[in-house]
Amino acid sequence: MKINVVKIGGGVIEKPEQLSAFLQSFAQLEGPKILVHGGGRLATEFAKKMGVETKMVEGRRITDADMLEIVTMVYGGLANKKIVAQLQAVGVDAVGLSGADGNLIKSHKRTGTAIDFGFVGDIDEVNDEFITTLINAHKVPVIAPLTHDKKGQLLNTNADTIAASVAKALAKSHEVRLILGFELIGVLSNPKDTSSVIHRIDTDTFQKLKEDKIITDGMIPKMTNAFDAISAGVKEVKICHALRVGNAEDNQEGTTIVA
Amino acid sequence: MKINVVKIGGGVIEKPEQLSAFLQSFAQLEGPKILVHGGGRLATEFAKKMGVETKMVEGRRITDADMLEIVTMVYGGLANKKIVAQLQAVGVDAVGLSGADGNLIKSHKRTGTAIDFGFVGDIDEVNDEFITTLINAHKVPVIAPLTHDKKGQLLNTNADTIAASVAKALAKSHEVRLILGFELIGVLSNPKDTSSVIHRIDTDTFQKLKEDKIITDGMIPKMTNAFDAISAGVKEVKICHALRVGNAEDNQEGTTIVA
Repeated sequence: MKINVVKIGGGVIEKPEQLSAFLQSFAQLEGPKILVHGGGRLATEFAKKMGVETKMVEGRRITDADMLEIVTMVYGGLANKKIVAQLQAVGVDAVGLSGADGNLIKSHKRTGTAIDFGFVGDIDEVNDEFITTLINAHKVPVIAPLTHDKKGQLLNTNADTIAASVAKALAKSHEVRLILGFELIGVLSNPKDTSSVIHRIDTDTFQKLKEDKIITDGMIPKMTNAFDAISAGVKEVKICHALRVGNAEDNQEGTTIVA
Repeated sequence: MKINVVKIGGGVIEKPEQLSAFLQSFAQLEGPKILVHGGGRLATEFAKKMGVETKMVEGRRITDADMLEIVTMVYGGLANKKIVAQLQAVGVDAVGLSGADGNLIKSHKRTGTAIDFGFVGDIDEVNDEFITTLINAHKVPVIAPLTHDKKGQLLNTNADTIAASVAKALAKSHEVRLILGFELIGVLSNPKDTSSVIHRIDTDTFQKLKEDKIITDGMIPKMTNAFDAISAGVKEVKICHALRVGNAEDNQEGTTIVA
């Protein structure tokens, strides 16, 4: 079957009006679908309220035991359940999940790196069978960026990585589109001109766009991850504006990345 | 099919060692099962850390907007996901849910009472079909004491009420035992003698025990709720020690309440 896996960042989740607009758009997306959400600065805000210090090393969050409690509460509780309740109100039969629920995403604690990131999990396996069970029951899984090691430990895992891993696992037996919702309307050939969206990029075009320095800097790792998903069997990756994910079927919407 | 619905209070959840012992016992319970958990004082503790005042009127918690955020985080996030991760570690394929997930428990905000309890939900309907889908997929639902109004609003709902409502809804098509895990080993005929457990109470015995003033005070509403569940089709209600729920099949364990 055809499945849309949508990733939405923390930026949208922090702003109630944007979140509501995004969920309305997500509701328009037809057929089986999955939502993976980040939590963004919400965890930092709550940490501050609770007097827990947010530790950053080289711009990256360190998840110590206190911070793990906070992300479990904020991502797995507050953000996830708010999204689910709001989706239920617009007719989407959402089911909120962490990677521990139904052994959805097994990971292991990251070790052996120069920086100790704390309770951060690198993904071992996605339980695509459980996702398929839910989809067959007409449910829409809503996944928070938490995983577990199946030894009782919850771990913090990047939402982009979760979305890509879920898409790849489902691609083994389904036709999967991965939709990345951003604050951008797509990949632009001229960053100053929002009408310059490049609608379709394949491997050859990507090389050329890099050589011509049209795709640079921060966009390169995003594109590399997109092509990585496609190499693993995902049919296409769509990069579009978060509030327009419902239009993802339209080839003129955002940027479509294919093999 | 035979289904065990187990309710566990906040007291056990607050203490990591007791929680672990309870989950070990719960894991021993054979066949399809469901866990409903409270959150107890954890929400009050976190409210204090975050500088949110816990408002009580006549000994009952008022759930204002700030407190609703906290119970969503603490019950739906922290407590629920910790329980799920620990159950996964002992081989129980748990799936954590709030009443919003899969439209599991629809409620409406309590209004028209002398005291305004705030965001508290009275249950309208339990989605027993979704629970059956999960059970058929060999999953163990773990339910946090949160419901929703299907208009986007999460609501705080008493865990005992959720457990009884879930048991009653499943009793329409299954043979259901409701297990209430307490700090007591059962109903005692002599409160000072822990070997005086009354192993079986039916409607007639209950009348007699009340007349003889053996069952008094706080135990009467618990027993009335138990008989209420039985009137609604639940086959039996077991009152036993939280750390012994795994022995619920044994007639000599705790107190069994039947019609």
